[in-house]
Amino acid sequence: MPNCIIAQSGGPTSVINSSVVGLLKANEELKKYDKVYGGINGIEGILNENIVELSSITEEDLILFQHTPSSGLGSCRYRMKDLETSTEEYDKLISILEKLDIKTFFYIGGNDSMDTTAKLALYAKKNSLDINFIGIPKTIDNDLMHIDHTPGFGSASKFIATTVFETFLDSSVYIYNGVFILETMGRDTGWLAASACMATYEGKPVADFIYLPEITFDKDAFLHDVKEKFKEQNQVFIVVSEGLKTKDGKFLSEIDYISQDNFAHPQLGGVCHYLRDLIIEAGITPRVKSLELGILQRCAMHCASQTDINEAFQVGYEALKFASNENNGFMVSIQRNGNSPYTVSYTLVEANKVANNIKYFPKEWINESGNHVTKEGYEYLKPLLQGNSNLSTCSTLPNYKVFNK
Amino acid sequence: MPNCIIAQSGGPTSVINSSVVGLLKANEELKKYDKVYGGINGIEGILNENIVELSSITEEDLILFQHTPSSGLGSCRYRMKDLETSTEEYDKLISILEKLDIKTFFYIGGNDSMDTTAKLALYAKKNSLDINFIGIPKTIDNDLMHIDHTPGFGSASKFIATTVFETFLDSSVYIYNGVFILETMGRDTGWLAASACMATYEGKPVADFIYLPEITFDKDAFLHDVKEKFKEQNQVFIVVSEGLKTKDGKFLSEIDYISQDNFAHPQLGGVCHYLRDLIIEAGITPRVKSLELGILQRCAMHCASQTDINEAFQVGYEALKFASNENNGFMVSIQRNGNSPYTVSYTLVEANKVANNIKYFPKEWINESGNHVTKEGYEYLKPLLQGNSNLSTCSTLPNYKVFNK
Repeated sequence: MPNCIIAQSGGPTSVINSSVVGLLKANEELKKYDKVYGGINGIEGILNENIVELSSITEEDLILFQHTPSSGLGSCRYRMKDLETSTEEYDKLISILEKLDIKTFFYIGGNDSMDTTAKLALYAKKNSLDINFIGIPKTIDNDLMHIDHTPGFGSASKFIATTVFETFLDSSVYIYNGVFILETMGRDTGWLAASACMATYEGKPVADFIYLPEITFDKDAFLHDVKEKFKEQNQVFIVVSEGLKTKDGKFLSEIDYISQDNFAHPQLGGVCHYLRDLIIEAGITPRVKSLELGILQRCAMHCASQTDINEAFQVGYEALKFASNENNGFMVSIQRNGNSPYTVSYTLVEANKVANNIKYFPKEWINESGNHVTKEGYEYLKPLLQGNSNLSTCSTLPNYKVFNK
Repeated sequence: MPNCIIAQSGGPTSVINSSVVGLLKANEELKKYDKVYGGINGIEGILNENIVELSSITEEDLILFQHTPSSGLGSCRYRMKDLETSTEEYDKLISILEKLDIKTFFYIGGNDSMDTTAKLALYAKKNSLDINFIGIPKTIDNDLMHIDHTPGFGSASKFIATTVFETFLDSSVYIYNGVFILETMGRDTGWLAASACMATYEGKPVADFIYLPEITFDKDAFLHDVKEKFKEQNQVFIVVSEGLKTKDGKFLSEIDYISQDNFAHPQLGGVCHYLRDLIIEAGITPRVKSLELGILQRCAMHCASQTDINEAFQVGYEALKFASNENNGFMVSIQRNGNSPYTVSYTLVEANKVANNIKYFPKEWINESGNHVTKEGYEYLKPLLQGNSNLSTCSTLPNYKVFNK
């Protein structure tokens, strides 16, 4: 019986390890492979033959690992050269896989990782190799095409909505409260910022405004919104996405750019501070606070969505089930059957259709003024946040377990 | 039977409402007062006669309220004039209290609020009024004198330790990880930053360095620490307090100062970004990320300590029990009996001994290099984080209830 390998790539999520555990559990049941290897630090680590065996992990450690945030096998942001440029890395990788009698390579990641998966699958096909490459979706940004939503998103969404609710209460305690601006991640898309609409008090969203990158940022309209709302209620709660852009296509804030990301995406963040300064300069009020959630939103397993943990598990499980030469180069996808009751189906989509594409937050789910989310957006999001994570905790802090240390 | 009133003051905590519920429950049992009133927005609101009756709140709402973060009766940062300057406000306040037949005024707050409590108690004594003022402690900063620890601190501490653990995992996933700097609140004291020592992996603290304001910041020593550790392990995880000061007594960062606080404390924050720039400028590595936890640490009820919730309840309960003319001007205090088992006693301390004083993190709990916390510090902190909050949640987000909206 041949073996398989699984690895993680790109930015971490709270539930990315649940997909590894799902795959391990599927193999326990279906006995498709002899050994399940784990590549440490994605493709980059596998090329250095940094590989561990996962099939022998104890049940206790597996449960801890499933509830541990961030890529517990390590990650990378490693871009394979184009096949036309050089096949050297491809040949090296294949020879490492063949040495371990690996028949299937599972890659958990976002659109960059699906690009890698598609390239490797194509190389295997072209060279009639008996090895296949299967993608497993993951990203807090929820920006993958051909999937209803991505594992990792629901938990980030839940943390954001919870935090919006809590910081709203905290920033509302005085008679004169001023303006509070909370900034989420999300790159070019507004899925994460839109999640703020889930935080409601007595049936009304606590966020007065939610600004998404899908709507071009208009400084005058923004200041008008804030000024009027501040006059009306003496306090304004605003949620913004890091990816807000002006009409000439520039990110509102590309400050603090440090080249940490070999895929040449700009490192975003800091928009909330820019907007704070705008409000103060406009003389609306000097009482403006701004807060970037930063990486908390992608690792706050202590506030994860159980639905998300379960679905992350299931995409790993289904990946193993689907694995075959016919499905070489495909990614497991999630299709939503309906909201009442909320159920999903697991299907396949070609990884190259997902690669290097972006799924934006639908414009029809943004209100006419371009500053909030509609009921349809709320209905889409709601099921993804269901259930509180059944965290493994000792009595003080969560118990976490990783394999890249 | 006379009535009483309770109000909240200063910065919010996650568990400040639990003290109100404790007091209400004590009155249900002991029937000491006819009605329990709530002052909305502290002294400032009471002077505007913004007062609600709390005794009639339903049991269901009480449970929600107990588990709702931030001052659910509203807050203020209102400083009463000195008695020598003018007694006008004092007379106004007393006449409002007398109109409602209020015999005891309970004030939940930190050292500024204890100053207010002491002044009011003194005024009542001087004028032989049959009214008394009792303080109930609260602050995430844990900087009150004559109390083992303050309600609010344990939950902030638990959120910080949890977040340190989670962001450490997130910032460790690559082969080359760089430096991560997480900044906590705490003003002039290091209690909150020190809480990072609770986050351990395989018996070792995940934070390589913890810098507290009790140790004068030394730029050269800091850069030496970071450089050596980075050489050794190719990644460094640092926790810093917002209150770090240079040897000439200046805060490392007083940037973003906006006058929001009538008590004339500088608004701190931003130290982590300053340190990030230092590391980059020193050429240690360009891969440095910095994150301010900001107000999340004082309102993350979703990650609260059950011990803290219980103790916040109990200081409210004991305040009602202790209330009498003899105890006019006292604050309820918590004394630790021991750690195994961890138990506490509730006593009284004069509010004016607490007022305008600061309790620093003990120097003997800081290691010799001045960059980490000793075992004694860890042992002090550990019991305060025990138990996960029994949060009232619907299946998506926590259910919260306040009375100042």
